[in-house]
Amino acid sequence: MSAQQALSGESILLREEQGGVVTLTLNRPAQFNALSEEMLSALQEALDDLKQDEAVRCVVIAASGKAFCAGHDLKQMRANPRQDYYDALFAQCSQVMQAIVNLPVPVIARVHGMATAAGCQLVASCDLAVAAESVTFAVSGINVGLFCSTPAVALSRNVSPKHAFDMLVTGRFISSAEALSFGLVSRVAPDAELDEAVEALTESICAKSPVAIRTGKAMFGRQRSMGLEEAYAYAGNIMACNMMAEDAAEGIDAFIEKRKPVWKGR
Amino acid sequence: MSAQQALSGESILLREEQGGVVTLTLNRPAQFNALSEEMLSALQEALDDLKQDEAVRCVVIAASGKAFCAGHDLKQMRANPRQDYYDALFAQCSQVMQAIVNLPVPVIARVHGMATAAGCQLVASCDLAVAAESVTFAVSGINVGLFCSTPAVALSRNVSPKHAFDMLVTGRFISSAEALSFGLVSRVAPDAELDEAVEALTESICAKSPVAIRTGKAMFGRQRSMGLEEAYAYAGNIMACNMMAEDAAEGIDAFIEKRKPVWKGR
Amino acid sequence: MSAQQALSGESILLREEQGGVVTLTLNRPAQFNALSEEMLSALQEALDDLKQDEAVRCVVIAASGKAFCAGHDLKQMRANPRQDYYDALFAQCSQVMQAIVNLPVPVIARVHGMATAAGCQLVASCDLAVAAESVTFAVSGINVGLFCSTPAVALSRNVSPKHAFDMLVTGRFISSAEALSFGLVSRVAPDAELDEAVEALTESICAKSPVAIRTGKAMFGRQRSMGLEEAYAYAGNIMACNMMAEDAAEGIDAFIEKRKPVWKGR
Repeated sequence: MSAQQALSGESILLREEQGGVVTLTLNRPAQFNALSEEMLSALQEALDDLKQDEAVRCVVIAASGKAFCAGHDLKQMRANPRQDYYDALFAQCSQVMQAIVNLPVPVIARVHGMATAAGCQLVASCDLAVAAESVTFAVSGINVGLFCSTPAVALSRNVSPKHAFDMLVTGRFISSAEALSFGLVSRVAPDAELDEAVEALTESICAKSPVAIRTGKAMFGRQRSMGLEEAYAYAGNIMACNMMAEDAAEGIDAFIEKRKPVWKGR
Repeated sequence: MSAQQALSGESILLREEQGGVVTLTLNRPAQFNALSEEMLSALQEALDDLKQDEAVRCVVIAASGKAFCAGHDLKQMRANPRQDYYDALFAQCSQVMQAIVNLPVPVIARVHGMATAAGCQLVASCDLAVAAESVTFAVSGINVGLFCSTPAVALSRNVSPKHAFDMLVTGRFISSAEALSFGLVSRVAPDAELDEAVEALTESICAKSPVAIRTGKAMFGRQRSMGLEEAYAYAGNIMACNMMAEDAAEGIDAFIEKRKPVWKGR
Repeated sequence: MSAQQALSGESILLREEQGGVVTLTLNRPAQFNALSEEMLSALQEALDDLKQDEAVRCVVIAASGKAFCAGHDLKQMRANPRQDYYDALFAQCSQVMQAIVNLPVPVIARVHGMATAAGCQLVASCDLAVAAESVTFAVSGINVGLFCSTPAVALSRNVSPKHAFDMLVTGRFISSAEALSFGLVSRVAPDAELDEAVEALTESICAKSPVAIRTGKAMFGRQRSMGLEEAYAYAGNIMACNMMAEDAAEGIDAFIEKRKPVWKGR
């Protein structure tokens, strides 16, 4: 999206759709896109809508302004100094993160500038993440006396424990190159080519069978917590069902006949 | 094995044994060693035999021709368009992969050329993998409308989730260097030195106490799914039993006396 | 600590405290700091004491002499060739490793020279590890007929399975650079700057709120074994409690007011 759109948009969360790719843009640039209650509600609502949308192929989470996301809205948090408020806030945020994990299609973080605290958690919670070379990442709550506990849940499911814990107790920034090596992001692009890199990824996904992509998104997350035998029994059945889809028949026939497949999406 | 053997061999799976190292060679080079029903049966049979063989020290899975393995046999799959056929096929394949995991001795993939889809799963399922520098790896079922669900089970137990999922939804190829960095293979060698690198590894294993290696192979896999306390209780007992073996006594005495140990294998 | 202190100290485990940082120094340099029964008892006692100590901010485990730690005391082990002795020994060692994991404050390994077998496990069991550039790491029990089963528990919770298993069955040494890339250590420093690097890390931790650091240490370990939904419910509640601490209020207010926070430690 252009800088103009971001500046003129009134909504804190912009939604754009093009050829099955839905881009949700965090749009509180002056607050570094902090995840206020309102932002979390807007994200939850958008994700709930997308869950029902059979036409969507993948979702990009992007952000306006200089930073991707600086985490929770600290001013709003301090204005509500009650345990029940915080319990509800972190539950709301955790629900948004899990809605990304449970969305039927892949979710890609388009990361520029900086991703800190719950902003870093947002990157970790996406299925895929493309970062500009200059991005810095931190789980920096510890600097203000607040250990990034909910971000740690997402981070430690991407990054090995010593690297994750070092980030969490020191609040230190890591580079995109480190984030790639640690497994926090899946791709890094030169700053000027970030949109190109995101497009290459969304185009690659859109060129695939919708039923196969949705099958994969759901099965990948579920099998991770299973033991090996259970995971294989589950995955084998999922794959047999996938083989009965018209798209698999078409895809394999096209491959054998050395032509491009024409997906029917079922 | 020499190219000649591969060309003249009639069997789809060659077996060679030398000094306790059993090499199983996938031998359908014209089909890029696709895992047909027959190939999976041959692998299962060979692994079942090896399970009983007290003399074997480690197993190498290698392949004839230009590629290591291109995954399932798509033509055979399309010739049998029935859910029950696919359920049985993926169950058979999952059983082979788990037979590798459950074999009492280490299994090493010797990877050259290309390893895709269930061929990449085969690499992921081995305990160790040595790849030639030029190898490319992909879980490319998605390109034919078939998400690599069972390969994802093995891949995601080796590779961090974002890297694994990126490979699975885009079908993109990764290099040996990336495979090493992701944890999909344990060693990479220049193409001309692949056999040398595999031999260095098998020789290293063969120089160790057989009882210690078999103890380690079994315990390593089992403890991974346990909680920390349970894993330590289990591993501590296994290690105490290992200390009661004659080989541990001999090995430690030899170390203290600065001489080479002579293993008795018990 | 200076070399002088190590040489003059009679205790096999030295304890030094400076500004909340407790350094425990393994002090059997002639035996490469082997983890004898006595050393394990001394470590357990020191860790039990530290558990009660509200003033301690973080713990450094260091070592005297040329090597960090060469693992179990093989001579002592061979002098007691009884299963019940070994069961008790590995249970004792596993308890020490779990006491590190369960300590209320971060534990940092300061690694120089060499860390092998249970010495490598000690590094893996710490929350953080800073290694000198020249350090070599191995789980080398296999060379003496004793598979490093209990070290494997800690190692495989840091390092991807193929890299861990390759180390375990071959006993090969890896460099600090590999250890960093595998996730076995969190930081590497030039040999001459090791103490500086450890100090930078302990200073960073000491500059944070004590209550936030203790909260984080406890929650990080616990949430790892939970499913995603359970982990988020747990972490969300922990973080809400953390927000009710005076330090979080102070930290956030200081951040908003662009001043340094003054921690009260509650």
